[in-house]
Amino acid sequence: MTPILKSGTVYGVGLGPGAQDLMSVRADRLIRGARHVAYFRKAGKPGQARRIVEGMLRDDLTEFPMDYPVTTEIPLADPRYAASLAGFYENVAAHLRALAESGEDVVVLAEGDPFFYGSFMHLFTRLEPHVPVRVVPGITGMAAAWTATGAPITWGDDVLTVAPATLPEAELSARIADTDALVVMKIGQNLPKLKRAIEAAGRMGEAWLVEYAAMAEERVIKLAEVDTAPYFSIAMIHGQGRRP
Amino acid sequence: MTPILKSGTVYGVGLGPGAQDLMSVRADRLIRGARHVAYFRKAGKPGQARRIVEGMLRDDLTEFPMDYPVTTEIPLADPRYAASLAGFYENVAAHLRALAESGEDVVVLAEGDPFFYGSFMHLFTRLEPHVPVRVVPGITGMAAAWTATGAPITWGDDVLTVAPATLPEAELSARIADTDALVVMKIGQNLPKLKRAIEAAGRMGEAWLVEYAAMAEERVIKLAEVDTAPYFSIAMIHGQGRRP
Repeated sequence: MTPILKSGTVYGVGLGPGAQDLMSVRADRLIRGARHVAYFRKAGKPGQARRIVEGMLRDDLTEFPMDYPVTTEIPLADPRYAASLAGFYENVAAHLRALAESGEDVVVLAEGDPFFYGSFMHLFTRLEPHVPVRVVPGITGMAAAWTATGAPITWGDDVLTVAPATLPEAELSARIADTDALVVMKIGQNLPKLKRAIEAAGRMGEAWLVEYAAMAEERVIKLAEVDTAPYFSIAMIHGQGRRP
Repeated sequence: MTPILKSGTVYGVGLGPGAQDLMSVRADRLIRGARHVAYFRKAGKPGQARRIVEGMLRDDLTEFPMDYPVTTEIPLADPRYAASLAGFYENVAAHLRALAESGEDVVVLAEGDPFFYGSFMHLFTRLEPHVPVRVVPGITGMAAAWTATGAPITWGDDVLTVAPATLPEAELSARIADTDALVVMKIGQNLPKLKRAIEAAGRMGEAWLVEYAAMAEERVIKLAEVDTAPYFSIAMIHGQGRRP
């Protein structure tokens, strides 16, 4: 009789915003003990997730970098874009599933919180029907960003809207006008559109940009004064609700 | 000559959602090393923040419980309610300021993230002009709640609305109808109103309630099936955005 092999677990581990000591104690333990670590990166780049855990990994571990397919020449709306990404996620999920089925635990590094606009979600849905998957929540980049501004984001009955800058300009502007507190993610090349949308909503005077929150390069600046935004940047407007 | 006394620092430390190993490594270190720990609680209760750190504190530390004034008999809209709370925050902030000015560091325990609907903010604004204050972000209760549901909260271009159930019913309903993903905080006695608002928005079938996320009593249940909600409960609707 062949012994029944116990399946390994795939852990989707939230790394938090970027400072090593802002990951959870649970994440810290899982990462330091891991024999298999997987992470997304752009092909040819070291990868931000991998950079965050530098110095924490076992000497004898196996790394599995998951290089995003180069898609910059395909527009987001083109079906080939989704097809290319879907094929990529299928492939890497198959590898992680095989590892787990061979009895190995795997830690997948996820910036911020894995279930909040994260790539890990695309692995989760593909793996969860087949092998045990556990998710460790993390401190979001937006929490590090509002901490960096030195001001609370929501008070009392404030409504917070989190919107990606990829939305159409008119919708973005309407949502910015109709909320107390605001967080905008995914800025990058959408910065000019975002600035027009905030201006149209009449709220430019309240808007901040936080670059590289919780990292060495952290910078907080009025949005009106910014002309370019790195990938790791978050815009926000603070709520002004009830405060005794 | 009197030696110049170096001021201590007041740390507003996010504890995360409730599990000890979901606090950040930075929070863990600060709490285990603290000689002065302050926390809010309802008079006569041990306090959730204090409960979370049970077993982590130094033997020789000094605790400063901050008992909320009993306000249940005063309506929220009554100016005496705000006045009572303001006086309370002034008093406890004065104590923390005096401690810091005498050279002592103080750790203030804050559930979740200190700048996200937290009581610590009311101390922050009163202390920050006078003594050094440092804030350590935390994993929010809502992140633990969506992790508990086993499904991502936001995908692709999803908009997330975070709303307190204390809002007027019509506004609550309009906001629930007009968002992709939803998180509702501060439910408690507002549960019947919240259920009517979600029903009116036509989204009851998508709505979940998570009680005591990340704690031993954690429970995930369809909102439609719930008639009471404990203080530590969060309602949510998951976004259904783009997923390759």
